[in-house]
Amino acid sequence: MNIKKYFGLSLLLLLINTAMAQSGYTTILQKVKLVFSIDDKGVPTYQVFYGADNFIKSSRLGLKLADNKSMDAGLTLIGVDSSSFDETWTPVLGEVNKIRNRYKQFTAYLKHNATGNLVNIVFRVFEDGIGFRYEFPKQAGLKYFVVTDELTQFNLAGDHKTFWIPGDYDANEYAYTESKMSQIGKASYLEKKAELGVYQVKDFASVQTPLMMKSDKGLYINIHEAALIDYPAMQLHVDTKTFQLSADLAPDVFGNKAHLLAPFHTPWRTIIVSDKAADILMSKTILNLNEPSKMINTSWIKPMKFVGVWWKMQTGNGTWSYTDYPDSTDTNGKLIPNGRHCANTANVKRYIDFASANGIQGVLVEGWNTGWESCCSNWTEDGFDFVTPYPDFNVRELHEYAAGKGVQMIMHNETGSSVTNYERQIDTAFKFMNAFGYTSVKTGYVGKIIPRGEYHDGQWMVNHYLRTVEKAAQYNVMIDIHEPMRPTGLQRTYPNWLANEAARGNEYYAFGKGNPIDHETILPFTRLMGGPMDYTPGIFKLNHYAADTTRKFRSTLCKQLALYVTMYSPLQMAADLPENYETHKDAFKFISDVPVDWDDTKVIAAEPGDYIAIARKGKGTNNWFIGAITDENNRDIKVDLSFLDKNKKYAAIIYADAPGTDWQHDQEKYSINKMILTVKSTLTLHLAKGGGAAVSIIQL
Amino acid sequence: MNIKKYFGLSLLLLLINTAMAQSGYTTILQKVKLVFSIDDKGVPTYQVFYGADNFIKSSRLGLKLADNKSMDAGLTLIGVDSSSFDETWTPVLGEVNKIRNRYKQFTAYLKHNATGNLVNIVFRVFEDGIGFRYEFPKQAGLKYFVVTDELTQFNLAGDHKTFWIPGDYDANEYAYTESKMSQIGKASYLEKKAELGVYQVKDFASVQTPLMMKSDKGLYINIHEAALIDYPAMQLHVDTKTFQLSADLAPDVFGNKAHLLAPFHTPWRTIIVSDKAADILMSKTILNLNEPSKMINTSWIKPMKFVGVWWKMQTGNGTWSYTDYPDSTDTNGKLIPNGRHCANTANVKRYIDFASANGIQGVLVEGWNTGWESCCSNWTEDGFDFVTPYPDFNVRELHEYAAGKGVQMIMHNETGSSVTNYERQIDTAFKFMNAFGYTSVKTGYVGKIIPRGEYHDGQWMVNHYLRTVEKAAQYNVMIDIHEPMRPTGLQRTYPNWLANEAARGNEYYAFGKGNPIDHETILPFTRLMGGPMDYTPGIFKLNHYAADTTRKFRSTLCKQLALYVTMYSPLQMAADLPENYETHKDAFKFISDVPVDWDDTKVIAAEPGDYIAIARKGKGTNNWFIGAITDENNRDIKVDLSFLDKNKKYAAIIYADAPGTDWQHDQEKYSINKMILTVKSTLTLHLAKGGGAAVSIIQL
Repeated sequence: MNIKKYFGLSLLLLLINTAMAQSGYTTILQKVKLVFSIDDKGVPTYQVFYGADNFIKSSRLGLKLADNKSMDAGLTLIGVDSSSFDETWTPVLGEVNKIRNRYKQFTAYLKHNATGNLVNIVFRVFEDGIGFRYEFPKQAGLKYFVVTDELTQFNLAGDHKTFWIPGDYDANEYAYTESKMSQIGKASYLEKKAELGVYQVKDFASVQTPLMMKSDKGLYINIHEAALIDYPAMQLHVDTKTFQLSADLAPDVFGNKAHLLAPFHTPWRTIIVSDKAADILMSKTILNLNEPSKMINTSWIKPMKFVGVWWKMQTGNGTWSYTDYPDSTDTNGKLIPNGRHCANTANVKRYIDFASANGIQGVLVEGWNTGWESCCSNWTEDGFDFVTPYPDFNVRELHEYAAGKGVQMIMHNETGSSVTNYERQIDTAFKFMNAFGYTSVKTGYVGKIIPRGEYHDGQWMVNHYLRTVEKAAQYNVMIDIHEPMRPTGLQRTYPNWLANEAARGNEYYAFGKGNPIDHETILPFTRLMGGPMDYTPGIFKLNHYAADTTRKFRSTLCKQLALYVTMYSPLQMAADLPENYETHKDAFKFISDVPVDWDDTKVIAAEPGDYIAIARKGKGTNNWFIGAITDENNRDIKVDLSFLDKNKKYAAIIYADAPGTDWQHDQEKYSINKMILTVKSTLTLHLAKGGGAAVSIIQL
Repeated sequence: MNIKKYFGLSLLLLLINTAMAQSGYTTILQKVKLVFSIDDKGVPTYQVFYGADNFIKSSRLGLKLADNKSMDAGLTLIGVDSSSFDETWTPVLGEVNKIRNRYKQFTAYLKHNATGNLVNIVFRVFEDGIGFRYEFPKQAGLKYFVVTDELTQFNLAGDHKTFWIPGDYDANEYAYTESKMSQIGKASYLEKKAELGVYQVKDFASVQTPLMMKSDKGLYINIHEAALIDYPAMQLHVDTKTFQLSADLAPDVFGNKAHLLAPFHTPWRTIIVSDKAADILMSKTILNLNEPSKMINTSWIKPMKFVGVWWKMQTGNGTWSYTDYPDSTDTNGKLIPNGRHCANTANVKRYIDFASANGIQGVLVEGWNTGWESCCSNWTEDGFDFVTPYPDFNVRELHEYAAGKGVQMIMHNETGSSVTNYERQIDTAFKFMNAFGYTSVKTGYVGKIIPRGEYHDGQWMVNHYLRTVEKAAQYNVMIDIHEPMRPTGLQRTYPNWLANEAARGNEYYAFGKGNPIDHETILPFTRLMGGPMDYTPGIFKLNHYAADTTRKFRSTLCKQLALYVTMYSPLQMAADLPENYETHKDAFKFISDVPVDWDDTKVIAAEPGDYIAIARKGKGTNNWFIGAITDENNRDIKVDLSFLDKNKKYAAIIYADAPGTDWQHDQEKYSINKMILTVKSTLTLHLAKGGGAAVSIIQL
């Protein structure tokens, strides 16, 4: 670690007069320039440049607080401070094994004239963007306080192309719309929310972050937040005429945003910028704005691929519940089975056998525990316990069977969003995991939140999710959360937090309208900016898989393979049924082979909404894996193999869409070609419409 | 147990036609007569008679349910059923050792014409009143459902004298108003709420139950509820012109009243009636409407008197918190003491010594654990833990010291109404109690509830309180809950639930306006109808006790003694400081001697708002104890001693207001007279204005 204080500059700034202060304080790192000012009404503002491009125009900063304690105007700059920082760190799991965290920091110390209360605004300027946050020091006049609004603005310079989903305090499983910012609005939302069980949109001109934009000049801009702790998630209100974005925090039921105690700091607001799309995907600024790992011993944290008892229920061919009604019992008090329950011992053994035979580390089983009859649309508090199996699921037998085959069972705790119920039982649940050797858990929050009136994105739930991650860590359990707020890089600080859902996954092909054909080319620029996603790729049976036989993926089989590389996650499901993999064992080999943790990553080609091609080097190996996907257009991707070791030969297997195949025609057809590659080889991947390609490159 | 089904009657009723049904079904036990009818719009009604007095006129029944499932009209009577029941049972702790539970039961089976859904209304007719409830059987058309309103009415026959406190979903610590029903309204409420930290009044013409009334004819009527489980507490909206009372259930934040799953039954709505005030106090109907004890082994449940580190803080002479701010630490990270913390080891030992020397079983200590700096007005979630003592409180040393002196330490868990926080830690808290030998706990719910938007009286909190009682039972811990909803007799089913606060206690003399001089003559007719109250009697220093030296009790010292008999509770505090008892050891002897669990009880004289005199026989002894209190009027109470054993002699000690003493003059003066009593003796107790008398009668 290396902190250099710019004492000279700092002292100078402390001495300047107000007129000088209003001209602004500039902090520059390479092409990124931040200018902070405070106007004559005591309103702080900032603007950001990329080279000469003033892509964030002067934008307001400030917070509204309850009880006449607002920090939004009438502020005096009482001091500034500058420093720089440069270190390189190693993530426990990741896309690369070294991350450079280099920034210049600027702090504005502000005092509220009327109350004398203090707030600091801290900026960090990186090579590819900035982060800033509000800090409330310990002070006599501000102990407990309530944030009623955050006034942070992002004033964009033009009507950019925008990849957006509607602002929603409860749901983030929307399909993206690609439009001009001026076209953001209600129509697109209404079309899309129909598939969601729970949604809470208060403002039709709002969008969620990470928000990806591209200017007419070709500048890529991404706005999000980092290190969201004890504060609500932020969405953005969009002024479709002026292109001003303003923070909109998920409220509690009374409209308050955060209940706080000083000292406190908000999450970082992040702006990532580049004239190359690939740089956005490679940015580590959000991770860098998070604190280092809180855990000393991380040896128990392992990346993992898994199969699971899940897709059959999602597609309508089975049930999570064992019976059809909460108290369906016969005259002997025994539960009456509905005959469609998938989480039964025999079926689970089939998954264990498959995993063991195919290099898959884990088996997830949903619907193993009692309570599913009451889930998840009744807004009812009791129902689930997290330790009692249905009568056809033998926990001990399966645990021993799996252990004998070298397979890890993955726990599943669906809460039905009855979060109070889960919190009451959470120690019992984790003790059960420890007792039966579960090393990881998938949690779920389907339905409307209890405490009633709280939202998935509000401060209370943000705190709950993190408490659960900390609880999991306390029991040495890795965690994958479904239906949380969008992640903000906290996997750096809590490396057992392997993945989240928090976006529209592959599952919408099972029960919804499916996903737009370009969906997976947008996700890495949006949702994945905050952290890994449990997207559940790897569906091989792409039509006639659901009870509703009209369903069909907008994907070829090879695109499903490529997603293991293009969608980074240290926890990846092979989501299809074993029987659908057994008939394509040659293609499944890629899923068996592909790592989920990496030493290095190269973005070969990328354009949001169009295509992504990425090469990654498996952790601790000299093997590379490539995934390439495209939207509705077919295209050729030329791969620059210069990342290969100059002195080595590699055996490559290329999984490509078969000639004549595309997402509408013979979508499950593929070709497999083997060849020897060196750094001098040329490799061009042909992607069909809605298709993809996957390549394994194993050092000889 | 003895259930006789009136099969003949039942069959007959099932065969009758609609016209006959509308004329009404009558159920009579002694003077109490219930008539059930259903009108031509399918609206069910009931009325109640006491002899010929139709004191509850025809009153509507029904429930509004969400999703067009209401059960309030358009109902068809599809069957009726009658039965009778007579048993005698023994409470674990109580005012008497045998309770007769005798009633006739009438059930109306109703079907909703539009939906086909079923609801039963079950009535029980006792000698001194009735109970009725709604029952939803398991049925295909009604699984999960939401009660949006209960339409139950109580149409009173006149403008009765009423002892009332305002309807409030969060607070019940009001002083009572004695007025005609027609005078119930806003003015009285506004005058009284100022002292409350948290209150939630939506309807100024509403009152809380137990509601005590007296008709011009001299009929005493009490309306309340029994066995409140998984449902909100009921308050009553008052039509001050027609004297119609209608149920008003505490809502959740969205205005819903209860989220339910059939089969389900509501609490019982109770009406107790007599032409003698003493009968109201002696009624066991609310207890009888509760289920028998759920606990097989109750040997660990013990009645108890206790002293405690509490009054000094209440009166403003000390603090619960050790420091003055949540993170008041010095440069070594140590907490900075404020020098006013009462729960320190030395002070607690003083209480243990006093208890041990004076026959007091327990010592309560408030303010022993960290977190008080954040309590209780900040609506903040974190703060308390329930296992970490302040640095000046040595848990183990005090536990051993108390054990060596034969004294029980009583745990204190103040939640600050951050209920989610308490629920997360509750197992840890109770394990700590078990580890350190705490056999009972006092819990507290000061402040606004978290989950934010829930009320103290709502379904969510009703469920929380009962969960906590069950959790305590699981750990063999007795419980005394402060700031719960009004009790409803559940101490029968959960005998470890020793007491509650749930009303305005003696403590209001410490920090509020004190209590009206007749307050303790009203409480047994109102709040105590549902169960024992932790009123904290026994204050000897009745003026100059508080930091605010203008404070003064509206009581003599002898009235404080009498409260141990007039206010039944198996858990009774001697609330004053040991130093104030040490100077009145002769008077304290009554507190040392008086039991808190009884074999028998006789009401000598009683009139709500005026006076109460009660004699009770100590459990397992032949000793009697009398308490008599009066309002602002002095009076003589002649005691009929016929309850004494004819063949025995008794040594009596009479603690009486000294001549010239009343609540305004020399209120701490008393006389102590010893005499021998037999069944033939005459005993008249003189009570000064605001005074009382206490008598111990020990068999020789």
